[in-house]
Amino acid sequence: MSIKVAVAQLELSVNSPETNFAKSKSVIVEAARNGAQLVVLPELANSGYGFNSKEQAFENSWQLDGSELREWKSLVAELNIVLVSGLALIEGNKLRNSSVIIDATGLLGVYHKAHLWGDEPDFFERGGTPPLVIQTQLGMIGTMVCYDVEFPEWVRYAMLEGAQLLAIPTNWPDTGIARKPTPLEVVRIQAAASQNKLAIAACDRTGDENGIHWVSSSVITDSNGVIQSIASSSSEEVIYAEIELPTDDVIGPRNAIKADRRTDLYKQFSIT
Amino acid sequence: MSIKVAVAQLELSVNSPETNFAKSKSVIVEAARNGAQLVVLPELANSGYGFNSKEQAFENSWQLDGSELREWKSLVAELNIVLVSGLALIEGNKLRNSSVIIDATGLLGVYHKAHLWGDEPDFFERGGTPPLVIQTQLGMIGTMVCYDVEFPEWVRYAMLEGAQLLAIPTNWPDTGIARKPTPLEVVRIQAAASQNKLAIAACDRTGDENGIHWVSSSVITDSNGVIQSIASSSSEEVIYAEIELPTDDVIGPRNAIKADRRTDLYKQFSIT
Repeated sequence: MSIKVAVAQLELSVNSPETNFAKSKSVIVEAARNGAQLVVLPELANSGYGFNSKEQAFENSWQLDGSELREWKSLVAELNIVLVSGLALIEGNKLRNSSVIIDATGLLGVYHKAHLWGDEPDFFERGGTPPLVIQTQLGMIGTMVCYDVEFPEWVRYAMLEGAQLLAIPTNWPDTGIARKPTPLEVVRIQAAASQNKLAIAACDRTGDENGIHWVSSSVITDSNGVIQSIASSSSEEVIYAEIELPTDDVIGPRNAIKADRRTDLYKQFSIT
Repeated sequence: MSIKVAVAQLELSVNSPETNFAKSKSVIVEAARNGAQLVVLPELANSGYGFNSKEQAFENSWQLDGSELREWKSLVAELNIVLVSGLALIEGNKLRNSSVIIDATGLLGVYHKAHLWGDEPDFFERGGTPPLVIQTQLGMIGTMVCYDVEFPEWVRYAMLEGAQLLAIPTNWPDTGIARKPTPLEVVRIQAAASQNKLAIAACDRTGDENGIHWVSSSVITDSNGVIQSIASSSSEEVIYAEIELPTDDVIGPRNAIKADRRTDLYKQFSIT
């Protein structure tokens, strides 16, 4: 089955969560009107990233049963799409850097980022659950957040759980590493896709924020890791691609990833 | 410490093992004269890849204590370099698709390819040992062969064992997957390097052989995964790069790969 995927690379700001929210709603509608069946938004799409204080992080975060998520769910049901978005979520007295999967039937699941980058531990509690992989109306969709994907263990888990497409909300800060011919952030997405034969839609943000410059360059790859669409490195843009969802892990006449994995050796040598 | 690395992308043939051998010796000398301290040769550098028969595979293979390897060891000692090469090796009545690490003190270790591609199981016995990682006169060098590197579990093991540079003999058959902007084979090398903070020198072969076309595009990356040198996609070429060997796994002011790995979760969710 082939599905039309939209990745909305947005400019976000910690100083205007209402604008972030309004922008998310209008871009979801725009993407659906353009035929997108799956829409992916950036990491922390509600709150922005470069918080000025812990108070601001709390103020910008949502409750899982709050009105904003209710609005999103209505919109998703009305448009009959699947939405994956990064979100700052309040959980008791903690904050989580999360990703949600919503389809026409409602909220299908919530994932909390397990590998935290930079100053994130000052604001967010680390996740303790594996990548979320769930049956949606489009197929098996998985999600994790940004730095998580640099841990191939995490992507492998999603693949073994049956993910056909990984939707990854990200905020890729520019670390100064050379970006040519392809930014390393994108290279890692391509490799993760090709080594696991799953499609990936990675949605980055854009727009400088409190001294942080973003790689942007959101990308959609097919399950061979080939780039199908890549966004500007500096501005807001919704990119689209028609993506064939893989139905097996066959990568050659005599090769399939799961069968070729040497789990006997990985166990023997305690490789995790 | 920074070292000068040479990767010798050679045209090889199953029909002329003597030429393969002569070529290997002359290119080792050439690379050393050009200042290379580490020289990497392709997978099955002695035998070629596209065997016409099992008999031919045996005829083209070397004994570990044979005269050819003695010649290589003398050359390496004389030139005071480190050599990593792919080799078809005879082990009793079996053949192995192996990689050897040789330095001025002699043969440091032998690794047998654990993940076999295509028709290789018709000729070679699968390896049963982990990637070879060993202290050489230049630093901790690791090796595995071609398809092995598509298994991030395997690269992770080498990193955890302390490899500063992975030397990977390869024969990358062209699978018809789009090669722009960068061949996926190279993309996977870049990602493996960047996700493990180790430099990689991947030496492919070139020259069509029994209907097999090769990606070529041998590559040397630094420990950020940035390409430092890349070979032609169609001809013999020795590429060189000055590579800084990483001394830690720090990838940001508050991030280091080993510390950031969620081994607690990988264990809990049986991720291997």
